[in-house]
Amino acid sequence: MNTSALLASPLARGPGSLPRQRQLILRLKKAILAGQLPAGGKLPSSRALAEELDISRNTVLIAYEQLTAEGFVIADRQGTRVAPLSAAASGAMRAEPPPAKAPATARRLASIVSTRNANDASLPMTPGTPALTQFPINAWRRAQDRALQAAPAATLGYGNPVGEPALREAIAQYLRVSRGVRCDASRIVITEGAQGALALCVQLLTDPGDTAWLEEPGYRGAKSAFHGGDLDVLALRVDADGIAIPESAWRERPPRLIQTTPSHQYPTGAVLSLARRLNLIERARQAGAWIIEDDYDSEFRHQGEPIAAMQGLVADAPVLYVGTFSKTMFPALRLGFLVLPEAIAAQAMPSIVEMLRGGHRLEQLTMAAFIENGQFSRHLGRMRRLYRERQAALRDALASHLGIEHEVLGGHSGLHLTVRLPPQFPDQDIVRQARRMGMNPGALSAFAVSPLSEDNGLVIGYGNTAADRYPALLRRLKEAALECRKRR
Amino acid sequence: MNTSALLASPLARGPGSLPRQRQLILRLKKAILAGQLPAGGKLPSSRALAEELDISRNTVLIAYEQLTAEGFVIADRQGTRVAPLSAAASGAMRAEPPPAKAPATARRLASIVSTRNANDASLPMTPGTPALTQFPINAWRRAQDRALQAAPAATLGYGNPVGEPALREAIAQYLRVSRGVRCDASRIVITEGAQGALALCVQLLTDPGDTAWLEEPGYRGAKSAFHGGDLDVLALRVDADGIAIPESAWRERPPRLIQTTPSHQYPTGAVLSLARRLNLIERARQAGAWIIEDDYDSEFRHQGEPIAAMQGLVADAPVLYVGTFSKTMFPALRLGFLVLPEAIAAQAMPSIVEMLRGGHRLEQLTMAAFIENGQFSRHLGRMRRLYRERQAALRDALASHLGIEHEVLGGHSGLHLTVRLPPQFPDQDIVRQARRMGMNPGALSAFAVSPLSEDNGLVIGYGNTAADRYPALLRRLKEAALECRKRR
Repeated sequence: MNTSALLASPLARGPGSLPRQRQLILRLKKAILAGQLPAGGKLPSSRALAEELDISRNTVLIAYEQLTAEGFVIADRQGTRVAPLSAAASGAMRAEPPPAKAPATARRLASIVSTRNANDASLPMTPGTPALTQFPINAWRRAQDRALQAAPAATLGYGNPVGEPALREAIAQYLRVSRGVRCDASRIVITEGAQGALALCVQLLTDPGDTAWLEEPGYRGAKSAFHGGDLDVLALRVDADGIAIPESAWRERPPRLIQTTPSHQYPTGAVLSLARRLNLIERARQAGAWIIEDDYDSEFRHQGEPIAAMQGLVADAPVLYVGTFSKTMFPALRLGFLVLPEAIAAQAMPSIVEMLRGGHRLEQLTMAAFIENGQFSRHLGRMRRLYRERQAALRDALASHLGIEHEVLGGHSGLHLTVRLPPQFPDQDIVRQARRMGMNPGALSAFAVSPLSEDNGLVIGYGNTAADRYPALLRRLKEAALECRKRR
Repeated sequence: MNTSALLASPLARGPGSLPRQRQLILRLKKAILAGQLPAGGKLPSSRALAEELDISRNTVLIAYEQLTAEGFVIADRQGTRVAPLSAAASGAMRAEPPPAKAPATARRLASIVSTRNANDASLPMTPGTPALTQFPINAWRRAQDRALQAAPAATLGYGNPVGEPALREAIAQYLRVSRGVRCDASRIVITEGAQGALALCVQLLTDPGDTAWLEEPGYRGAKSAFHGGDLDVLALRVDADGIAIPESAWRERPPRLIQTTPSHQYPTGAVLSLARRLNLIERARQAGAWIIEDDYDSEFRHQGEPIAAMQGLVADAPVLYVGTFSKTMFPALRLGFLVLPEAIAAQAMPSIVEMLRGGHRLEQLTMAAFIENGQFSRHLGRMRRLYRERQAALRDALASHLGIEHEVLGGHSGLHLTVRLPPQFPDQDIVRQARRMGMNPGALSAFAVSPLSEDNGLVIGYGNTAADRYPALLRRLKEAALECRKRR
């Protein structure tokens, strides 16, 4: 084989072309991978190739060195030769697509058909989205800038995987005072939003095949997290007093984990009654199960004080308390937290340190400062007033402009109202139609694993939608609903 | 029972005390939970209690409303009574610690004894930590501030869970040009650092019990991620040409995942030879296995060009390419990325959207701008020169000042050098002693699942340590080593 001829076509020169050394390396690699320079074959001497290509010998030497380092060639006293390759290695060069096996996990996850909301915060009525345009972005920008200026360079490095001590302390104080949670900073883990906290509970407390209960209808993220841990998922109906657990469930499919949103059931708005809270705590204790209390938006209660957290109801409750700043601050912040039960905190922390890697330290420090200097509670106060006004406006507009028989469920809290509709108005159709008309409510039935006819309705966010827009929006929503009405 | 007497002790007044309404709520809750106000018992009328406590009747009414909302009491025409409770619920009020069952997963994870480095970036010789004091923090601060100013309020909301399009595009361009990776933005997923990418590979591609191979000695984070997915982990020895896979392993414990650091084996510094790369790709194809290429620090090659990525070697290689900005930027940024193989990208993305929740959008947008405007590659260039100088200084100091027989392994790349020591100098003892003396190298044996005698040595980071410090540091390290020498 005339190696020289193969390599001898001139290299590109001039502006826009790669450096010649780089070109030479790429050309040699390509020829070797294509089998044009076969395994064991000798390359031209650097001197000969340099002359042939009219480049400096040094350029060739550097190219050969690079190929040696990457294992394409072997240099010894006899010169430079193409590295020997096994049959399998030669096979790899005949590029064939790999067998596209869909592993079981991917199949399982793909089976969770995505009916989640587009979460397009720019559309009115998006559930779960706070009033982003009201966020004090300049105050946050200044706080962040101060934190970055104050941070010694080491703060750029790896931090404690469970979170910045300053933020854990600030959260512990806040939870004790505002949410009645029994905790101290040593039991708090900073997570990637509430979802990160759920995933951590699954990883920490379950084995594949364990049973997990969740609310029906309920928060889809819990279902994803439980599926991710290969859990056997049992969805239990909620009523006006929250999750209603039939006696048979304890007997027949005793849980390892129980997901619940006791202060403001998502999405029906029910408050878990005291009797059920105490009952749940006691039965969970007996069963060796753990309750996940997802307290996602109870800061915003529009009548009286916020409902106190279940975690603090009795001492040593088997409750993992999950919170998030996605609603109180903004979703892109993606900071959540988990309060471990005292009974397992000391034992679990070393495992958690292995499971998490920390990071986002500047955001955490900024958030800590935001809580400590009172900006967080001032912002909460402003938002509480704003959401109260928006919820009232939405209720008025529902009564005056929807013009379709409906029932407003629970909900004197939070950022959304859930409205049940008669079955001739199929919610998923209405939601699709509403999106075409520039509104983004959720379909109640999409929150259920096995929707019943009573799970037909709309989950209407008011966090991101100004009060004066509801009359017009509700008239449009009525239009959407009427277009989707089924005749029978 | 004299309910009034129980409730009648005066409420605290004056500065520093809680609002009286709050005090009353807490007092009533406590009495109910303690059984002092038994289930079914009637509360005093609001008028009577208000008089008794010398507070306004409205305060009492609000307190009763709150207790009603939280399910502690029930209000009807007969007045306000304590809610009825089941036997189990009453049991919950007798606080007993829950059975502290340690689930199998927690036990398993606790068995991973943490021998990871403290990662205290302020100590010299910490492996894997870049030169934090050299990071252009003001440029980053300005870029972040600009991104925050430019961001419409919607950017505070939920984003695409797989990452900001601008960053995915910037990474795709960078990887194609600088790392020889075959990709486009549609195959890139932004993750919580490299660890998030590993966890995603496990979740996406494996079932519990599947076999995963990793390098021995190797990156401990891979072991954690594989344990987290309940995988059967097989550690395969590395030599001077990288991971050496015995024929029997393919036969007896065929893998689903293979973790490898081909461009700069962590921690030995070996480069996976071309023959082995091609062989690995072909065998993985035949076995239906996926290779995880963890390309954590190969931007910093100190001789010639960076070693090209294995992912781009042949078309359609069954490789998941993992990268991170932890070394090139700073660890607290916690931004990593995964390039999916084309064969599964379209199929896997809908699952990934369910598995991730996105977030940290401002950091992502800042990073995208940093790449696009060239600041990233300028920073890389500066750091490459800096680390080259630091590595050379460390090599010189090892030769001149360690004064103990040793072998410097591989490593013309990255941020650390690995030095093998004779067995009479036990590495974990030396590391402990070194930490007491203010240095933070890693112990080579701690990187191995089942360390051999040849895995005795030190992993010395030079990313965070200035060149002129090495002579003094190495003399101190010699001292530490001599104090730990075993006589036999």
